Amino acid sequence: MHNFPRAMQRLIMELSKLPSIGEKSATRLAYHLVSSDRELAQSLTRVMSEALAAVRLCSKCFFLSEEELCPICRDESRDAGMLCVVEKPMDLVALERMHEFNGLYHVLHGVWAPLRGRGPESMKLDELMVRLREGKVTEVVLATSSTVEGDATALYIARLAGELGVKSSRLAQGVPKGGELEYLDDVTLSRAFAGRSVIS
Amino acid sequence: MHNFPRAMQRLIMELSKLPSIGEKSATRLAYHLVSSDRELAQSLTRVMSEALAAVRLCSKCFFLSEEELCPICRDESRDAGMLCVVEKPMDLVALERMHEFNGLYHVLHGVWAPLRGRGPESMKLDELMVRLREGKVTEVVLATSSTVEGDATALYIARLAGELGVKSSRLAQGVPKGGELEYLDDVTLSRAFAGRSVIS
Repeated sequence: MHNFPRAMQRLIMELSKLPSIGEKSATRLAYHLVSSDRELAQSLTRVMSEALAAVRLCSKCFFLSEEELCPICRDESRDAGMLCVVEKPMDLVALERMHEFNGLYHVLHGVWAPLRGRGPESMKLDELMVRLREGKVTEVVLATSSTVEGDATALYIARLAGELGVKSSRLAQGVPKGGELEYLDDVTLSRAFAGRSVIS
Repeated sequence: MHNFPRAMQRLIMELSKLPSIGEKSATRLAYHLVSSDRELAQSLTRVMSEALAAVRLCSKCFFLSEEELCPICRDESRDAGMLCVVEKPMDLVALERMHEFNGLYHVLHGVWAPLRGRGPESMKLDELMVRLREGKVTEVVLATSSTVEGDATALYIARLAGELGVKSSRLAQGVPKGGELEYLDDVTLSRAFAGRSVIS
């Protein structure tokens, strides 16, 4: 590594700060950008500056937006009584893909992860409470991940919402489409069993 | 994805053009850069522009360099009679790490890969021939990868070098340090067996 030119070493250092990119991948990426595909490197720097300048968080739901309010929050045909709470913008995109939910969203940008030293203050929770206190929301759909941290976050929010008289719900748990029983973990299987539905 | 702001979509598109980065990883990287670590995004754009401006290929060996000639080619204490041929700059860095080779290098920036439609013209081969014809080099160490393509490239270069009266050698093949026999592939094992050395 110390044989590379300084500017290359600095690029490798910065690239290896990206999540899930180690020094080896960073070296390969830097070589690709500097040596094989300089056009891509140029368009990347341009597009990244543009994104930094243009993209911010929606002031209401905290999804990524180019305006004060994101298109979903601006859409008046949406049901303001249903509020779906997700961890990351990518989760919102996944839910929107199913074209079935017509309410609004709230992006937490985190989960409650006490073991990693991240308490409720590390996510957009106060902002969620402000929205719930406005009184328009009747049901909060807690679509955090089905992990220990996601479950804890959902339970915590459900309790706070309950104190404000707002109903909470959680995504159903069970066998994923295409899932073979043999490969399912025990917890998923037992929840799918407990939540079985009658075939009429 | 179409729910993301335009500038974010463009960033995801560009990031997913990087080698071994798919759309999902690109989305995660873009979110990290735009939402969690804007400082990193800013320093990345700066450092990438700097690398593009400062780093070019050494005009002699084609290693990455900030000057016309790289520090290795400028070093007159190096043995100009030994020329080690590698595929990528990363290979040169790996060889330099062992601090044992004191000759010069030639970086091909490719291999002969007919099945992927890449012939000898896709690498710095003509430039290598020019260097060999100068008559200073007495031995070419062919340190291309130990793959079908790397072997073919080495054989091809060895034949051309032979016509110029230059000796060629290839890195030894055998059991890697720390390698357990049980997990070795058959070809490596049979080569290690054939190349066994007497313990005196």
